[in-house]
Amino acid sequence: MPTPPAARYVAVVGPGDAAADDRRDAEAIGAELARRGIVVVTGGLGGVMEAASRGAAREGGVTVGLLPGLDRSAANPHVTIAIPTGLGELRNGLVVRAADGVVAVGRGSGTLSEIALALKHGKPVVGLRSYDLEVGDMAAVSTPEDAVAAICARL
Amino acid sequence: MPTPPAARYVAVVGPGDAAADDRRDAEAIGAELARRGIVVVTGGLGGVMEAASRGAAREGGVTVGLLPGLDRSAANPHVTIAIPTGLGELRNGLVVRAADGVVAVGRGSGTLSEIALALKHGKPVVGLRSYDLEVGDMAAVSTPEDAVAAICARL
Amino acid sequence: MPTPPAARYVAVVGPGDAAADDRRDAEAIGAELARRGIVVVTGGLGGVMEAASRGAAREGGVTVGLLPGLDRSAANPHVTIAIPTGLGELRNGLVVRAADGVVAVGRGSGTLSEIALALKHGKPVVGLRSYDLEVGDMAAVSTPEDAVAAICARL
Amino acid sequence: MPTPPAARYVAVVGPGDAAADDRRDAEAIGAELARRGIVVVTGGLGGVMEAASRGAAREGGVTVGLLPGLDRSAANPHVTIAIPTGLGELRNGLVVRAADGVVAVGRGSGTLSEIALALKHGKPVVGLRSYDLEVGDMAAVSTPEDAVAAICARL
Repeated sequence: MPTPPAARYVAVVGPGDAAADDRRDAEAIGAELARRGIVVVTGGLGGVMEAASRGAAREGGVTVGLLPGLDRSAANPHVTIAIPTGLGELRNGLVVRAADGVVAVGRGSGTLSEIALALKHGKPVVGLRSYDLEVGDMAAVSTPEDAVAAICARL
Repeated sequence: MPTPPAARYVAVVGPGDAAADDRRDAEAIGAELARRGIVVVTGGLGGVMEAASRGAAREGGVTVGLLPGLDRSAANPHVTIAIPTGLGELRNGLVVRAADGVVAVGRGSGTLSEIALALKHGKPVVGLRSYDLEVGDMAAVSTPEDAVAAICARL
Repeated sequence: MPTPPAARYVAVVGPGDAAADDRRDAEAIGAELARRGIVVVTGGLGGVMEAASRGAAREGGVTVGLLPGLDRSAANPHVTIAIPTGLGELRNGLVVRAADGVVAVGRGSGTLSEIALALKHGKPVVGLRSYDLEVGDMAAVSTPEDAVAAICARL
Repeated sequence: MPTPPAARYVAVVGPGDAAADDRRDAEAIGAELARRGIVVVTGGLGGVMEAASRGAAREGGVTVGLLPGLDRSAANPHVTIAIPTGLGELRNGLVVRAADGVVAVGRGSGTLSEIALALKHGKPVVGLRSYDLEVGDMAAVSTPEDAVAAICARL
């Protein structure tokens, strides 16, 4: 286990009904974050959240899932620490607060809310096939490797 | 006073450090919403929030300010009901939940988070000099009159 | 309408399935608070919350209902401003934050959480047939008139 | 690491300025919970929270700290996963939601709010030198061993 507060935390956010390429890349990102000893934070459900968790778990990493509902069993099976918040979509803000930086994979209104809240909090954001915004510290990348390199350079 | 739950609530969101044209138009939007008997919800602070509240108050309307901090006196003087939430930027989600629809005036990461959360909740959003997104039910307008007409048509 | 931030806000908290004497006294408390120009804050639902709202509304007062769910229509009909929070029981903390002081009528775990959070925030609490705790600034009273007098003396 | 959702989570709550006997017993409780493979959830700060985390960490257990502020480094050094929530005292509700049961050690208004919210959520609570309430499923015990046995019997 990493020893906080030394450990770094990165959120991987993206749609729960993600396309195949988004799931594939989220899994690669989760895996590489775990290899670097970084705790992977997600919203705990499916799609990009599950793929990133699976990748991190495969590499022996620690994943935190902040769930929208009150039922812990809604977490995908690759979540190490599952936290039911009961906040609904407001848990997106907790995902951002729990992280030192955010990697967004793909698009969707929930994903966009997490990007926006991260930028509002002044946290770095890296997007892969996500939004191209003109606010805050957000970088667009085109590969999982670049996503991890870019977010780590900004932490 | 309107008699909920019959009354409708519309959030007017936008930057706290808004430009002059955004403040002017937000005031016109608040005034027109009030003339229609609609409760105006804002984040309670300055800029677009203050301008919309001022417009609504001028027309005898009711304005609700959901403040990020714990201090009620941080509300702008045109807020009728000031609610300190202590949630920081997560109060943006409460602004959206308190409203039946959202009018965004101008741009900023906080504004973007409110647009995204509204779309995630399936609530209509109208933008004036704001973001042009390809997700959910969001319409772009160019005048305060059109903004109010468009949001009311979607409630 | 009162003009915040000058207006004072008092939460009236108590069980949703309140006994007849608790409902009767909550209504009297709501009425007297309204006569004093104080905004009455509740959790927006039934029992003590509805009774306090009814009393305040009868006297032309303003009542704010902070609802646990996302549906505004769950508010009792005497709520002036109904705010769906979607926070579940965590909205109890918002009720406390929205108020300058708390009057508790009757007992229950939700009521107890509001008393405890108010005391934690250093806000005055007055209890009528409620808990007798040895923490913070909490006074026990035996009539609605004493409840209002006691909370107003502490604001 | 435990494999959620199979793992159980127990919150250990109590004052941040705890007396020596409360800290000693909280440490023993955290240690015994960890030996049983239970994830220990706390508010992440000092006093009872730190003591329970220290006990769990000593036994190789996993501890989650849900912090009131936005700064991860406020976590005590024995927290494995530190989550800054920025919710202030409302994070007490998240501590309760994250746990399957609650052990309260000592007294205080924050502790009382956690007990009350747990009972409101229908979760079992065990108290050691804490409140003796007549609501919900709350058991009073007099030793750390009994506290762990009692909460585990109720999970």
